[in-house]
Amino acid sequence: MDEGRKRVVIEAVRPEIDGGRFPVKRVAGETVAVEADVFADGHDLLSARLLYRREGVSQWSEVSMKQGFNDRWKGAFTVEEPGVYSYTVQAWVDRFLSWRQGLAKKVSAGQGVSLDLLTGAEILEGLISQASGEDAVKFEEAVKALRSSAGESGRVDAAMDEELAAAAARSPAKKWATTYQPELRVLVEPVQARFSAWYEMFPRSCSPRKGKSGTFQDCESLLPYIAGMGFDVLYFPPIHPIGRSHRKGKNNRSQAEMSDVGSPWAIGAAEGGHKTVHPELGTLEDFRRLTAKAREHGLEVALDLAFQCTPDHPYVKEHPEWFRRRPDGTIQHAENPPKKYEDVYPFDFTAENWRELWEELKSVVLFWMEQGVRVFRVDNPHTKPFPFWEWLIGEIKKKDPAVIFLSEAFTRPKIMYRLAKLGFSQSYTYFAWRNTKRELEEYFTELTRTEVKEFFRPNLWPNTPDILTEYLQMGGRAAFMARLVLAATLAASYGIYGPAFELCENQPREPGSEEYLDSEKYEIRSWDRNRPDGLAEFIGRVNRIRRENPALQSDRNLQFHSVDNEQLICYSKNTEDLSNLILVLVNLDPHHPHAGWVNLPLTDMGLDPRQPYQVHDLLSGARYLWTGPRNYVAVDPGMAPAQVFRIRRRVRTERDFDYFM
Amino acid sequence: MDEGRKRVVIEAVRPEIDGGRFPVKRVAGETVAVEADVFADGHDLLSARLLYRREGVSQWSEVSMKQGFNDRWKGAFTVEEPGVYSYTVQAWVDRFLSWRQGLAKKVSAGQGVSLDLLTGAEILEGLISQASGEDAVKFEEAVKALRSSAGESGRVDAAMDEELAAAAARSPAKKWATTYQPELRVLVEPVQARFSAWYEMFPRSCSPRKGKSGTFQDCESLLPYIAGMGFDVLYFPPIHPIGRSHRKGKNNRSQAEMSDVGSPWAIGAAEGGHKTVHPELGTLEDFRRLTAKAREHGLEVALDLAFQCTPDHPYVKEHPEWFRRRPDGTIQHAENPPKKYEDVYPFDFTAENWRELWEELKSVVLFWMEQGVRVFRVDNPHTKPFPFWEWLIGEIKKKDPAVIFLSEAFTRPKIMYRLAKLGFSQSYTYFAWRNTKRELEEYFTELTRTEVKEFFRPNLWPNTPDILTEYLQMGGRAAFMARLVLAATLAASYGIYGPAFELCENQPREPGSEEYLDSEKYEIRSWDRNRPDGLAEFIGRVNRIRRENPALQSDRNLQFHSVDNEQLICYSKNTEDLSNLILVLVNLDPHHPHAGWVNLPLTDMGLDPRQPYQVHDLLSGARYLWTGPRNYVAVDPGMAPAQVFRIRRRVRTERDFDYFM
Repeated sequence: MDEGRKRVVIEAVRPEIDGGRFPVKRVAGETVAVEADVFADGHDLLSARLLYRREGVSQWSEVSMKQGFNDRWKGAFTVEEPGVYSYTVQAWVDRFLSWRQGLAKKVSAGQGVSLDLLTGAEILEGLISQASGEDAVKFEEAVKALRSSAGESGRVDAAMDEELAAAAARSPAKKWATTYQPELRVLVEPVQARFSAWYEMFPRSCSPRKGKSGTFQDCESLLPYIAGMGFDVLYFPPIHPIGRSHRKGKNNRSQAEMSDVGSPWAIGAAEGGHKTVHPELGTLEDFRRLTAKAREHGLEVALDLAFQCTPDHPYVKEHPEWFRRRPDGTIQHAENPPKKYEDVYPFDFTAENWRELWEELKSVVLFWMEQGVRVFRVDNPHTKPFPFWEWLIGEIKKKDPAVIFLSEAFTRPKIMYRLAKLGFSQSYTYFAWRNTKRELEEYFTELTRTEVKEFFRPNLWPNTPDILTEYLQMGGRAAFMARLVLAATLAASYGIYGPAFELCENQPREPGSEEYLDSEKYEIRSWDRNRPDGLAEFIGRVNRIRRENPALQSDRNLQFHSVDNEQLICYSKNTEDLSNLILVLVNLDPHHPHAGWVNLPLTDMGLDPRQPYQVHDLLSGARYLWTGPRNYVAVDPGMAPAQVFRIRRRVRTERDFDYFM
Repeated sequence: MDEGRKRVVIEAVRPEIDGGRFPVKRVAGETVAVEADVFADGHDLLSARLLYRREGVSQWSEVSMKQGFNDRWKGAFTVEEPGVYSYTVQAWVDRFLSWRQGLAKKVSAGQGVSLDLLTGAEILEGLISQASGEDAVKFEEAVKALRSSAGESGRVDAAMDEELAAAAARSPAKKWATTYQPELRVLVEPVQARFSAWYEMFPRSCSPRKGKSGTFQDCESLLPYIAGMGFDVLYFPPIHPIGRSHRKGKNNRSQAEMSDVGSPWAIGAAEGGHKTVHPELGTLEDFRRLTAKAREHGLEVALDLAFQCTPDHPYVKEHPEWFRRRPDGTIQHAENPPKKYEDVYPFDFTAENWRELWEELKSVVLFWMEQGVRVFRVDNPHTKPFPFWEWLIGEIKKKDPAVIFLSEAFTRPKIMYRLAKLGFSQSYTYFAWRNTKRELEEYFTELTRTEVKEFFRPNLWPNTPDILTEYLQMGGRAAFMARLVLAATLAASYGIYGPAFELCENQPREPGSEEYLDSEKYEIRSWDRNRPDGLAEFIGRVNRIRRENPALQSDRNLQFHSVDNEQLICYSKNTEDLSNLILVLVNLDPHHPHAGWVNLPLTDMGLDPRQPYQVHDLLSGARYLWTGPRNYVAVDPGMAPAQVFRIRRRVRTERDFDYFM
């Protein structure tokens, strides 16, 4: 028979992912609010504490939990720096509290309590040995008072002393305390894991001279342009030597011409593989300099981890055992029957010597970390085994918990969520294909109002080199603006693939395709970044609004509001202290003006329903005075398809003037 | 680095209670339908099996799981007899299936597949060693065929052979299979744990002579009456000697008179304690005979486990260390300040020698099992520690898994649910205080449509010796009839405290009280069971309907339907094979007739919306022909406040006659 005297039950601890199998996620400085059902048999009063500690620290820190409705207890702690924290809940029957409450009730019912006072003395004696100096003295004094020959009412006063209660709360007995199992974990990452604006760019298209391959040096000269738009992550497709075997031609033609440059994702050639820079882009030294310069502009350079090889990759010769063989001895190329990808050899992650392969891939990440890279975008993680990613990210985070991984998995929902659970900091989403109000509201409610918010951080991309959506193809400049505002305000992290985005590039390879015509994936492009109809300035304004308004820097505070027009979507974000309140209104129809009535839950939003309030469109600069929950709005996509209001809680009246009083 | 090649993920297995901490519940012969998210990286096809075994059996039984939408897989197994079963899910990347699918796609795309055929031969070779004789032969033949010099199309036919696929499904490789952890459990109990009708009765009120204490022999002569009403559990309040110290008088007066008999829950006197029969009721021999006779009438006798003592209980002298002492050396009586219960000494379940106490209480249960008792109603389990009940029920079930425990915990919801999780077969509920349509629909939706259904089996009591609800006090005979039908049809288990119930006893001790006037808890009552306005016959009819209609014998099939009148509640229950369909309609207002339109989801209910159907009121015998989803209903409480329809799916038309064709 195990110890049967632990009477307190602790269950339904939240947050908790899959019974504690995975950590929840936070960024440095955030709070972890923990709830649990805590109860015991009978009428005794309980005490509960939230225990937490950083990995490597043996001593728990403790914070009191407060009892709420229906046996739900709550507490919170702050995670200060990147790394892993643990937490759990501890609770016990509090004999002191139970006794004190019973005593008070008996006294007010006029019952004699002389025996109860002696019981209290016994309880307090039990607290002395484990109490800190000051509390121990307090307990000793109380015992003396309770056992004294003074009159009952004086002894009751000593028993009910508030300071005595405070000492007992600080130094409890915790006899037969229950500690929730298993210990739960928090993966703490840098703030950029939660709040970031990404800009994807092909370095080889950065040359000022048409038709010539751009270099890292050319990229350097674009840093002011990119930083000027307000981005903080500059992400490059793979920068490694590109294979020649089965190289794809322009527009993904199966036969390349001699002059074709190939896809950057076809990694590996005679010149080297995943730890080598494509010679046309420059040297490793150039890359390091670019990374450092970018940081001076507030930009982190992000690299692409695309763990696959062309037939020309040095690994193929050096480690043929890392690939799957066909019965004729040749190496198996990638395929999804009947499609064949003969330019790609996937690694066999379950090969006999898989440990060696995994270690080598880890060394690739470490190599680029040594060159100054802290942010990685991972290509198709869903086509490599989950245990590999959990191991790899764990190993890297042990080395540097500030490294950020973005999962590029456009696949089924449970697979995307699993990748997030096992450690990816951010994830691509279905945002590109959520266009109607209902689609957007449903999807973002799932992401921000369910358990998903504890482990999945969305990064919204209106376009990528693989995705030119129908909405962008058809909707013109207004569509680009609307999708930009949605991406930048629905989630705290978003990104665009430029300059295709800011130049509103919208020609598909063929009708019905989401591929770009003359895609940069297969050829060098030259861009006129100064075109007067470009969106660079608009994007800069949106990113400045994001930086200046903390409400837009997190995901969990998203709340949708009703508008009586299916083409208008409306939502707000509020900081926890209600000091910064942003209301966004987007016209989803890029072709026609729309108007309607929004309906806001003013009290929930921290607004006084009896007071007018000012809404200030940070995009246009316009200011409106609104009153009550229902207000009229109109959005003309010909002017701007979106309005991003900052709400000022109280508008001045004559009472605000000094002389009024 | 652990084995990293287990590529398949299994998560969100259902049913699963608190991460596998507690078993789900079933009765013998029921099905356990298991679902899980099963997926892996990439495009490979997977196979999954549900594994299950009875406790003590080392070999798993296996059943294939089928893939549904969104990576959800499903399987089911049947639990044959009371005891504990384990189950889990196992899944692996199925190389054979993946290869076969790829081959088929390539063939239909007209691609050459000679290498693929050789790959298939390699895969099949890997299956031979672990296959059963017949399958092994099949694989060997296939390998030969695939490697033969025959033409490609002949070899493709051999590869795509359905029998080969069947053999591979029977004898899979399971290489690097993932097995879900932890193993989950099912607590299997007798059918009576799910479907039962309880009758509570004070044996001392069974004498045919007014004022005289009834005996077990008197109870015997009432067995035909009780069995005639259709009950199958006959539950007695405690049958032990009753203490004299601080004995309560009639109507719970604090001073008893000499002639007062005391409360049966005040257990223990000079004559003995929990293993002794009250001398006025008869002998242990009498009790055993009654139990055996009752069984002949289809009735299980249920005893009350009330683990508490009066000051006169032999335990108090023999084991004073099992009780809490006050500072003056006296034993602490029960209290909930400022209320005192001086006639009750609670056990101290956390006493120094708690193990000895727990073992003694277990011996009480074993003692009554030896006298033939298999069903126990547990008094106030929520005032004893949870670990005690988990241990006690576990120990008893090891001895006899067919023993049934009913938890009488009227307390906060999470405590009631915890008691159910840790092993109680059935539980009292809040039913007595759920009177309006909305209250009933919300509560029973929680009980039957959420995870609660996996561990909590409601037992509905419209009254108990402690609970005479306001509804029954005010509503007259119709109220008793309505609450009986609700109890008997909303849940598969219910009970009444009689004869107070069937005689519509409705006088409270004082206004606002739920206590009965002249409660049997404190005095012997004499009842005229043959009163013409009694409900015995009506109750018998309701119980007969329950027995004849399997739809009413389970809880999970409850579905509410809309009626456009707040006083009318409507719900249906269906058997899984749709062969038995019951529709219940109750007028919740015992004073006025009400009418309205019900709206039924005919297709969901297995009815053809284009065909008329017959509804047959099994209470009144009336039959109506309904058509379409909306039908008019009217219920007059002056006649009968409820209608219990059996729905006959198809009504004859002229086409049913032989000569029509």
